[in-house]
Amino acid sequence: MRFTIEQIAAALKAEAFGAVELSVTGATEPAEATEDQLALAMDPKFAEGLGRGKARAAILWDGADWQALGLEAAILVKRPRYAMAGLTRLMAEGPNIAPGIHPSAVVDPSASLGEGTAIGPLVVIGANAKIGAGARIASHVSIAEDVVIGDDALIHSGVRIQARVRIGSSFVCQPGVVIGGDGFSFVTPETSRVEEARASLGTQASAINSGWARIHSLGSVEIGDDVEIGSNSSVDAGTVKPTRIGNGTKLDSLVQVGHNVQIGEHCLLCAQVGVAGSTVIGNRVVLGGQTGVGDNITIGDDVVAGGASKILSKVPAGRVVLGYPAMKMDQFIAASQNWRRLPRLMEDVRALKKSVPLDGEDD
Amino acid sequence: MRFTIEQIAAALKAEAFGAVELSVTGATEPAEATEDQLALAMDPKFAEGLGRGKARAAILWDGADWQALGLEAAILVKRPRYAMAGLTRLMAEGPNIAPGIHPSAVVDPSASLGEGTAIGPLVVIGANAKIGAGARIASHVSIAEDVVIGDDALIHSGVRIQARVRIGSSFVCQPGVVIGGDGFSFVTPETSRVEEARASLGTQASAINSGWARIHSLGSVEIGDDVEIGSNSSVDAGTVKPTRIGNGTKLDSLVQVGHNVQIGEHCLLCAQVGVAGSTVIGNRVVLGGQTGVGDNITIGDDVVAGGASKILSKVPAGRVVLGYPAMKMDQFIAASQNWRRLPRLMEDVRALKKSVPLDGEDD
Amino acid sequence: MRFTIEQIAAALKAEAFGAVELSVTGATEPAEATEDQLALAMDPKFAEGLGRGKARAAILWDGADWQALGLEAAILVKRPRYAMAGLTRLMAEGPNIAPGIHPSAVVDPSASLGEGTAIGPLVVIGANAKIGAGARIASHVSIAEDVVIGDDALIHSGVRIQARVRIGSSFVCQPGVVIGGDGFSFVTPETSRVEEARASLGTQASAINSGWARIHSLGSVEIGDDVEIGSNSSVDAGTVKPTRIGNGTKLDSLVQVGHNVQIGEHCLLCAQVGVAGSTVIGNRVVLGGQTGVGDNITIGDDVVAGGASKILSKVPAGRVVLGYPAMKMDQFIAASQNWRRLPRLMEDVRALKKSVPLDGEDD
Repeated sequence: MRFTIEQIAAALKAEAFGAVELSVTGATEPAEATEDQLALAMDPKFAEGLGRGKARAAILWDGADWQALGLEAAILVKRPRYAMAGLTRLMAEGPNIAPGIHPSAVVDPSASLGEGTAIGPLVVIGANAKIGAGARIASHVSIAEDVVIGDDALIHSGVRIQARVRIGSSFVCQPGVVIGGDGFSFVTPETSRVEEARASLGTQASAINSGWARIHSLGSVEIGDDVEIGSNSSVDAGTVKPTRIGNGTKLDSLVQVGHNVQIGEHCLLCAQVGVAGSTVIGNRVVLGGQTGVGDNITIGDDVVAGGASKILSKVPAGRVVLGYPAMKMDQFIAASQNWRRLPRLMEDVRALKKSVPLDGEDD
Repeated sequence: MRFTIEQIAAALKAEAFGAVELSVTGATEPAEATEDQLALAMDPKFAEGLGRGKARAAILWDGADWQALGLEAAILVKRPRYAMAGLTRLMAEGPNIAPGIHPSAVVDPSASLGEGTAIGPLVVIGANAKIGAGARIASHVSIAEDVVIGDDALIHSGVRIQARVRIGSSFVCQPGVVIGGDGFSFVTPETSRVEEARASLGTQASAINSGWARIHSLGSVEIGDDVEIGSNSSVDAGTVKPTRIGNGTKLDSLVQVGHNVQIGEHCLLCAQVGVAGSTVIGNRVVLGGQTGVGDNITIGDDVVAGGASKILSKVPAGRVVLGYPAMKMDQFIAASQNWRRLPRLMEDVRALKKSVPLDGEDD
Repeated sequence: MRFTIEQIAAALKAEAFGAVELSVTGATEPAEATEDQLALAMDPKFAEGLGRGKARAAILWDGADWQALGLEAAILVKRPRYAMAGLTRLMAEGPNIAPGIHPSAVVDPSASLGEGTAIGPLVVIGANAKIGAGARIASHVSIAEDVVIGDDALIHSGVRIQARVRIGSSFVCQPGVVIGGDGFSFVTPETSRVEEARASLGTQASAINSGWARIHSLGSVEIGDDVEIGSNSSVDAGTVKPTRIGNGTKLDSLVQVGHNVQIGEHCLLCAQVGVAGSTVIGNRVVLGGQTGVGDNITIGDDVVAGGASKILSKVPAGRVVLGYPAMKMDQFIAASQNWRRLPRLMEDVRALKKSVPLDGEDD
């Protein structure tokens, strides 16, 4: 496929200069670009690469002198990362799924599929499932009974959507995701050792756990519009009410969302984040990769957690945290720098103790 | 489906009062209950919600005055969480898998299936596999050659059970689980940089690793009775002897159990826990979410590890731990509180050093 | 299958003694060995077990007096772990996949398969995919359009390989792996709260994130020769250029490799490691289980990271690190030991302050 510079500029809502009718087949780094490729040089530090590559057109930083750089055409952008969104949306090829239902798919006759759906090979769709218009579902996906999915879903291969899950429109789901697996909820007949340990902060734990009775999940999962879930992530079903993920929220790969969790709108949960049961997360929250959030915790709106934060208690709205346990980011950075100074500090105190007769010291 | 209050009370082994022949279709929070639903108000703080909902019957805390709450019937329970186990077991609908073998399944003629099994669409069962009576196996599951699974298994969609794995009765397996993948075991011809670094605690590492030779896994996996494994978890095969998981042990989602690991009975491993190769875990151990356990470590019976503990050395029986590295929970809580006080402490020591002539200080 | 002692010694490139024509069916621990099994007693501490088992032959430590141990034959080895590589390679049975293409597989007519390939049941192979000679592909695998895979691949069940991924020869892939899922890359029209928080180390974050625009992944994944990937791991596609994994590198289970990441040759990434977007990892790097690496970081050659290290900034070549944030291993070990001494240290400083009139103290 070919795209003119004019088309690309329109997709980016940016201004194009020069031979805007010139067309390219794709985009790449300046030094590697062929005559047929658009060079991506959104920062002056990449200008030098243009000379080594063969691009005739480029996306450049705001204010760049494109003619001096020897280009025939250019698009100037103010926020390079945001320009990448428009550019890649234009150029991305979706997965190749033929329209209609592949003959090897197993679709229950009571399931309803919207107009223009494309169901790949070996997909299984259960009784009474409802899938909206324009859905593309790749091979080996299983969609269980009574699932509802909105319009324009893109579900990659091997995804498992369990019974009664409800999902809004424009859903994107990477391969291997599980939605609606049973929650991890087990209870002992008497107070368990874990309950004791938590109540006493570890100082008392005398109970011996006997066998675990299973609390089954009746609650399924509800997901809003414009949600994306990354490869091999898992969102567990709620106990009585559904686990919920709000509109516009994005989950990366290998993320775990426990039963009864409520996640607000426009959040980002980076790879390998884990959120334990019944925790409530506000809107626009960003959790860095490998962040863990304990169960039954509240995280306010606009919280940002740096990578691998371990959140063990409530976080007020707007706070930026880091560390284990998570604390204010600058506090954790200061603490971790001070750790390296501890050996010297201890030596100093030892020396001071030798030099100073302490009041009342006798131990 | 409808359940009478009497039936529910019997399932909970609890006492019912009032119009026990009254029936409901499900259970929910008090304020949201319709006339047809049982309200869950096991704590006095939920009593107020009863007035806002329409429930005619409820499960209440021990000693509640159900008539004063305007109910027609009630069940009183002593331990609410435990009551949830009985209630949800009664009301849970299993996955919808038709009895018999779906025509799209690929079952080797040498495989043996017990009475009353239900094999879903596109399941693959290999040569000489033996599956017990009453098993329910959802779509897209692969069960390799020589696997043995006991009675009453429930295996959700997309599970992979590799060759020669042996599993006891009443197994529950959430979607996407892998059991018996090869262990991660690679070795260099000469002592590797990692071996040096471990032996010297990081102070010496001069070797350069050449290529890695693979140690293949001959040992498979053995799993006891009443075990559950959560979505997308992985249990690796042993090298020579099997990796083992004891009776009654439950694994949450995205858990990794390395090769040769031995896990005792009635343990709970919460989401994203990782246990490295050849580690031995006792009975009734609870590992909080994202806990990591190093290789070749022993964890005693009844240990409880708080969320995200990183266990780098042996833990004696009964200990409650937290932190990285994991230490006694109260010790880690104290340490992490003290980190924030370090800047002030360092200032104090600086001031003291200025005021005190130290013995023999000359650096 | 039976193996003679002579055959085994040849596979191990080690010397055999005694009745080398004697044959065994497998190998196990000394005390459990039957007459038909080879005892593994590569350390003198296992010698005692030989008396309790029935093995007639054993693999022993270098210099062992095999005759005094009552054996009929023995193989002596210098590096036991390395011997395990040869032994298990000889004895491992691969998965049982019939040669040819299973009739239930869905292979696009434009796909090309090398000689001697074995394609299991319910495999899907897309348009223009090219798979080398000798490949074994187990059930339920999906290989999308335009994928290229070299000779001698072993791909276990349920693996998802997305469009345009390129993989070298001798690839081993455990079940459930996803290669080429879309990268997690979202951007706001204006500077986001996360960007502010990172730039200010958490001290300033006033922006409110509006909705996230998606940066699509055009770049796919390139994997070298002799690479292995563990169960349920995920390797995301690059934005413009491919995400890359070098020759001889091995990934354990549940590992996440973000978009644009470049990993060198002969690295080991243990279970649950996460590497965030655009990070560059050198050659022969070993990352212990649950290690996290932030985005846009460089890790030099021969770095070793202990279990659960959280790498938040550049690591120079050759360094051995541990901790959160990752620091030199001995530094972190010292720091974590000192944490427990903090309460006492603080008491000491309090006492000193009482005893010493500080210069200029007035707060």
